[in-house]
Amino acid sequence: MNQERVRATYLVETPYSLERAAATIAGEQSTGTFTSVPGETDELKAKYGAIVEHIEQLAEVDIPSLPGAKPPAGHDGKYRQGRVTVSFPLHNFGPSIPNLLAAVAGNLYELQELSGLRLLDLDLPQSFTTRYPGPKFGIAGTRKLTGVYDRPILGTIIKPSIGLSTEQLSELVKKLALAGMDFIKDDELNANPPCAPLEQKVKAVMEAVERAADATGKKLMYAFNITGDIDELRRNHDLVVKSGGTCVMVSILSVGLSGLAYLNQYSEVPIHGHRNQWGMLTRSPLLGIEFTAYQKLCRLAGADHLHVNGFNSKFYESNESVLRSIQACTSPLLGGYHSMPVISSMQWAGTAPVTYEATRSVDVMHLAGGGMLAHPDGPAAGFESMKLGWEAAVQGFSLDSYAKQHPPLQRAIEKYGRG
Amino acid sequence: MNQERVRATYLVETPYSLERAAATIAGEQSTGTFTSVPGETDELKAKYGAIVEHIEQLAEVDIPSLPGAKPPAGHDGKYRQGRVTVSFPLHNFGPSIPNLLAAVAGNLYELQELSGLRLLDLDLPQSFTTRYPGPKFGIAGTRKLTGVYDRPILGTIIKPSIGLSTEQLSELVKKLALAGMDFIKDDELNANPPCAPLEQKVKAVMEAVERAADATGKKLMYAFNITGDIDELRRNHDLVVKSGGTCVMVSILSVGLSGLAYLNQYSEVPIHGHRNQWGMLTRSPLLGIEFTAYQKLCRLAGADHLHVNGFNSKFYESNESVLRSIQACTSPLLGGYHSMPVISSMQWAGTAPVTYEATRSVDVMHLAGGGMLAHPDGPAAGFESMKLGWEAAVQGFSLDSYAKQHPPLQRAIEKYGRG
Repeated sequence: MNQERVRATYLVETPYSLERAAATIAGEQSTGTFTSVPGETDELKAKYGAIVEHIEQLAEVDIPSLPGAKPPAGHDGKYRQGRVTVSFPLHNFGPSIPNLLAAVAGNLYELQELSGLRLLDLDLPQSFTTRYPGPKFGIAGTRKLTGVYDRPILGTIIKPSIGLSTEQLSELVKKLALAGMDFIKDDELNANPPCAPLEQKVKAVMEAVERAADATGKKLMYAFNITGDIDELRRNHDLVVKSGGTCVMVSILSVGLSGLAYLNQYSEVPIHGHRNQWGMLTRSPLLGIEFTAYQKLCRLAGADHLHVNGFNSKFYESNESVLRSIQACTSPLLGGYHSMPVISSMQWAGTAPVTYEATRSVDVMHLAGGGMLAHPDGPAAGFESMKLGWEAAVQGFSLDSYAKQHPPLQRAIEKYGRG
Repeated sequence: MNQERVRATYLVETPYSLERAAATIAGEQSTGTFTSVPGETDELKAKYGAIVEHIEQLAEVDIPSLPGAKPPAGHDGKYRQGRVTVSFPLHNFGPSIPNLLAAVAGNLYELQELSGLRLLDLDLPQSFTTRYPGPKFGIAGTRKLTGVYDRPILGTIIKPSIGLSTEQLSELVKKLALAGMDFIKDDELNANPPCAPLEQKVKAVMEAVERAADATGKKLMYAFNITGDIDELRRNHDLVVKSGGTCVMVSILSVGLSGLAYLNQYSEVPIHGHRNQWGMLTRSPLLGIEFTAYQKLCRLAGADHLHVNGFNSKFYESNESVLRSIQACTSPLLGGYHSMPVISSMQWAGTAPVTYEATRSVDVMHLAGGGMLAHPDGPAAGFESMKLGWEAAVQGFSLDSYAKQHPPLQRAIEKYGRG
């Protein structure tokens, strides 16, 4: 029998002792139920039971983070927080992401012994590599396809998200491609809507991309949003590839990790993984999942690119948390599985320095929607300003001083830097 | 152009005015971004923009429910809660569950204008029926397959969840089937693990079921947990059906709503929808999704049975919330799509009266794991005690008085009723 184990680390809050809470977690998610049943022998428990590996006490609080916990009789009014690591025998579920989730998450979030539970990290055994080959392109493959090696891959998001005619879209893409842009993505709101069917969009966009490539010698990567039901994923992917497209995008939480892994079985171009809806799994500090854990599953399932928000974004997330996400995506996982972190949301040239200062890396995709398209001198100048922002950051110049010699950057600062 | 709209109702909390927050939600999820871009014309907004339909003020609070909201300058320290309804043109995404999610949830949970957001309900237009045919069996089909018409479908969950040998499992199932049990399900922790491959399990269980049916004339419904990656779903389903099985189970959040809809395209038996992991989407009161909204998507995607927790369960959820979930599952949706609510978690004969008193309905599946299998006189007596509990409830007898004439119920009360 396979002796590999999965280790799951949780942030726990409980009106019980941490030891009791940890034991409940381990029991609930392996051999136990609320009452002993015939057959739950010591031998069975030893072979199949989850084990509490480690408990680290953290704070005590007076107010429970989540509702519905039922304190024990004689409760002292304290809710104990701690970091708990539990290990599960892999042979209970096998190297299967869907069944892993039932084990490491399952019913835990609803237990009345807990007033908070957050999955912080997952340590997965090597067997997962046999089932999930992971990203086929990642950072290196994306650089090769775009021909961009020495700086971040810079791109934009089609805005307005929805409502552009095929002709307007085609014109916009052509203009951006002629300006030398590296990458464009559909908005996550725009996949294959009745008002702009994917088939028409792919045709119009790829014509613009190819014609611009003839002129510039550089082929822009366009991430077509192929999000849809399972059978549509394949149809949409094939449509993009047959038309010469070099990237497909999915909303991971829309198609599920299973849908992503399914797409990755036959995909021939990088998969751009968008994480919209993610906030609902993570914004409550003592609930859900930390991105550190979730991104491992996205990488296993095959996301070549993975959205991580951006520094100084329009979202609630702190820069520290964004940095952790970026570093997580490129950290070792089972000997590989690097995804390219995608930075977006209220980005413009001026967010390059803060990003580089924190990450000291150019192995990111940096996307600006309005921050490029609404540049006062047009999208091409917007793209130029982003390149300049990164040049300044990498060379250690202040943005303002660099802008003095570089009008597109100066104009970007005037537009976006006075907010 | 299609004029159908989707209406989404949210519970919102914001340091801004509710009007401003509602407008941000509508803009972010349709034509807007953080800055105006060329092309976002009034005509485009009129055709593709989301519309704020209704705002209802609720409480004001001093402490934000979620972290990361950025109050405006001169903020009065108050966070306003309200119910906001926004409508989206269907032609922005079409009748597609994955793309609907990107629109009605999307990035909203992360906006710094909000300190809380919960999707309360969804009003979907008729077009969804053309894409999603929904449950093929539902309540009526499940009753027909089990032959149980005048009371809840009573069943158990295999416990210990994991670790029984094929022989032990087969013996247990045979004993329960001979006792006349209606329904058994695999635990959500036990799908197709290396330690007990589904193929062996299906063979052993169906042999026991068929042999018992030969003796009793009644064929027990066994919900095999076929949760797995997308390609496994079909293989596993076909294995069950070929072996004479009459039900398959999936963890909906493991396979995703897309995975469920995919399975429903070819399934030939009822789909038992387990909602483990659901707590992480719903336990924080001002985050995530209310089950009222989520169950509609599960029904569209084809869940014939849908878990709703149970009264007086081991979970944090209140009985009122469980009742709302039960009623939601059988409420009209686009002219049909009824799912059978599945009540479970720490259930036993004694939870029948409270369930019936609240629901006044026997159109439920009532499952007891330990509450049946750990009955002092064995699982058959456990099943008998559940039937007796419902008889007492429906006929209006108190449990204790009914137990005086019915030893299996008396013994259940002695075991489970003194907690």
